[in-house]
Amino acid sequence: MRQSKLFTKTRKEVPADETSKNAELLIRGGFIHKEMAGVYSYLPLGLRVLKKIEGIIRDEMNRVGGIEMKTSILQDKEIWEKTNRWSDDEVDIWFKTKLKNGGEVGLSWSNEENFANILKQYVSSYKDLPLYLYDFKDILRNETRSKSGILRGREFYWKALYSFSRNEAEHNNFYERMKVAYQDIFKRVGIGHVTYLTFASGGAFSKYSHEFQTLTSAGEDTIYVSEDKAMAINKEVLEEEVLTSLGLEKDKLVEHRAIEVGNIFTLGVSKPEALGLSYADKDGEKNYVFMGSYGIGLGRLMGTIVEALSDDKGMVWPESVAPFSVHLLVLGADEEVLREANKIYESMIKDGVEVLFDDRSDVSAGEKFSDADLLGMPYRAVVSARSLKENGIELKKRTEEKGKIVSETELMNLLKAKS
Amino acid sequence: MRQSKLFTKTRKEVPADETSKNAELLIRGGFIHKEMAGVYSYLPLGLRVLKKIEGIIRDEMNRVGGIEMKTSILQDKEIWEKTNRWSDDEVDIWFKTKLKNGGEVGLSWSNEENFANILKQYVSSYKDLPLYLYDFKDILRNETRSKSGILRGREFYWKALYSFSRNEAEHNNFYERMKVAYQDIFKRVGIGHVTYLTFASGGAFSKYSHEFQTLTSAGEDTIYVSEDKAMAINKEVLEEEVLTSLGLEKDKLVEHRAIEVGNIFTLGVSKPEALGLSYADKDGEKNYVFMGSYGIGLGRLMGTIVEALSDDKGMVWPESVAPFSVHLLVLGADEEVLREANKIYESMIKDGVEVLFDDRSDVSAGEKFSDADLLGMPYRAVVSARSLKENGIELKKRTEEKGKIVSETELMNLLKAKS
Repeated sequence: MRQSKLFTKTRKEVPADETSKNAELLIRGGFIHKEMAGVYSYLPLGLRVLKKIEGIIRDEMNRVGGIEMKTSILQDKEIWEKTNRWSDDEVDIWFKTKLKNGGEVGLSWSNEENFANILKQYVSSYKDLPLYLYDFKDILRNETRSKSGILRGREFYWKALYSFSRNEAEHNNFYERMKVAYQDIFKRVGIGHVTYLTFASGGAFSKYSHEFQTLTSAGEDTIYVSEDKAMAINKEVLEEEVLTSLGLEKDKLVEHRAIEVGNIFTLGVSKPEALGLSYADKDGEKNYVFMGSYGIGLGRLMGTIVEALSDDKGMVWPESVAPFSVHLLVLGADEEVLREANKIYESMIKDGVEVLFDDRSDVSAGEKFSDADLLGMPYRAVVSARSLKENGIELKKRTEEKGKIVSETELMNLLKAKS
Repeated sequence: MRQSKLFTKTRKEVPADETSKNAELLIRGGFIHKEMAGVYSYLPLGLRVLKKIEGIIRDEMNRVGGIEMKTSILQDKEIWEKTNRWSDDEVDIWFKTKLKNGGEVGLSWSNEENFANILKQYVSSYKDLPLYLYDFKDILRNETRSKSGILRGREFYWKALYSFSRNEAEHNNFYERMKVAYQDIFKRVGIGHVTYLTFASGGAFSKYSHEFQTLTSAGEDTIYVSEDKAMAINKEVLEEEVLTSLGLEKDKLVEHRAIEVGNIFTLGVSKPEALGLSYADKDGEKNYVFMGSYGIGLGRLMGTIVEALSDDKGMVWPESVAPFSVHLLVLGADEEVLREANKIYESMIKDGVEVLFDDRSDVSAGEKFSDADLLGMPYRAVVSARSLKENGIELKKRTEEKGKIVSETELMNLLKAKS
């Protein structure tokens, strides 16, 4: 894409009430637009990152046998009353609204009831199970704390998968597979090296659960990492008994701030009982379906990548989720230089390389460099009178201090291998 | 996909309050699940159709220079007050809800204000224009009439594009290109032959607008088609003056019921004026941006395809939007037949053919045939003892009465060419 056609521009300032690093950088780079506290629109660059994260998650969910659906935002009061989660006393983050023809509806803040209720229509026998269903969806939560940019929103885009198993043993087997799938997701989006499988409390559903926590000072959680075991434990369950059961030694634990980027829960049979989701086993006996729940907030994950990897010049996108693989810059107004840069841009497009081409004519070299640092594409390729004198293009990784001159062929081979 | 792994099953019955043909067939086929009147979840087969429609629309929007974003569902009261569209007296389909920290927010029922407000951040000069921005989004409307399945929902998935031009002439030029893009979309999703560019009233924004109307008895609108001019006129503007200006002759018009599958509007400068979206022209003079609006409801389009093309046996999906290109059926329990069908399925998967394989062992041949008719994939390929005796597979188009025996090579060549 030509940067001259990209309507967003980098900015020096951010809204006064924006204190988080992720929102500051994403707003300055034109990735997101703040609508109100905790509510953001995704501009073209931001949407490109979100879509790449979505693609990686979808791929991993399909790999474990997940089947995608698209459930509604408007939620039926009756269904949530059955599980005792309609009342604001039980769930204090509901947004609710009224139908013109009368009656109240909720806006989806979670999906367990929705999925289980749909399955009542289709599950009756043990032959119908297990099932792993998921969707990507805009979730709405009436949060009072929403000061951390896209880490905790009143509106956010998430993936939720629900597992429906015949019994606990079958569930446990799948739960272990999901641990691996989640670790693969965090590796693939580029934060595997700072993300730990973390033992945590189970919330409303079970005694314990597993979180995936990414180390960064912006984190709301405190965790204790056992580097040698490559796992961590959330402060909320830091007890002698738990440490022993996990085989962790207290003096090997190091305290860190971290962001929870994913959470997996064993739900058990309580919701299926309340909603009447049962099946007949081989002997014709009635059993309740055993549920598990596996969520990832895509905006939060994107914000975490910004928090964990950016430096003092701007964002640093891993290749797998960067809006573009390479930021091509042309410097100066020399006709030969412009012709050469345009030629390189065209051949990148032809070869399917994802390239942002800073072809702006009214911007100084210094501004182009600092914009490239702020926007954070993995590679920066500069075409200038100087680089052409050396018969090449100056190529620099975002994480490197200095670039080097490469030939057009070298550049294209490198980038084609990535695309 | 193996049908034995698809959790949805075809059903004989639909909810008692469901009277529309589209919802009846889509629910019976397991494409959608009714959550409440006017609110549906998309099950795996339905989502596959929706995603294909989305892909075609995205492709056409990118072709005219559209740039995709993702705007929020929660809407800021202040912005809509500026254009006088916050009050329920002005807009009677708002869903509104309350923030826990105080204050009211709206749920997005349309997007003009949202997009124009974002652009204030980025547009200041004539060099920043024109811009064509769009998104795909769940839209919520507090409708009292919601009896027509996915044709008119309280919640629906749509594409909205907004054009931001320097002046009316530049706008008109783009508007004409969008007419063509819309016609291309309706052709590509398989209803071009029954869809007419229709002259209509402009609603709140301008005197006239253009609709795209698809002929079907389920339509809420009445239009008059001039077959020789390949265009139509909505009953609401059927006046002598309008006919003359369009060069239409009254006695050549034929009355039809039709569904509006798309609508394009000239908005003009009123919203930019109210919101303060202006630019400096070449002489430094301040001008307001000239807007246009172009919507398509994807669920409505999907429902219209069902209404317009289905027959008394079930749905008939055009190849471009079918959940799968081919429905492969294996009949009987003969081991050689099963082995052969599995082999064909595996080679289809290997070749990237989108295939639904009815490998169910507890279902009769008759049920498999009637399910194939109901689900409506473009091709049905049957492997049975009889077809193997004739050294082949029985291939039938959904729209044909009788199939014919083809060799495996012929079958694969035909389907590969489609994939």
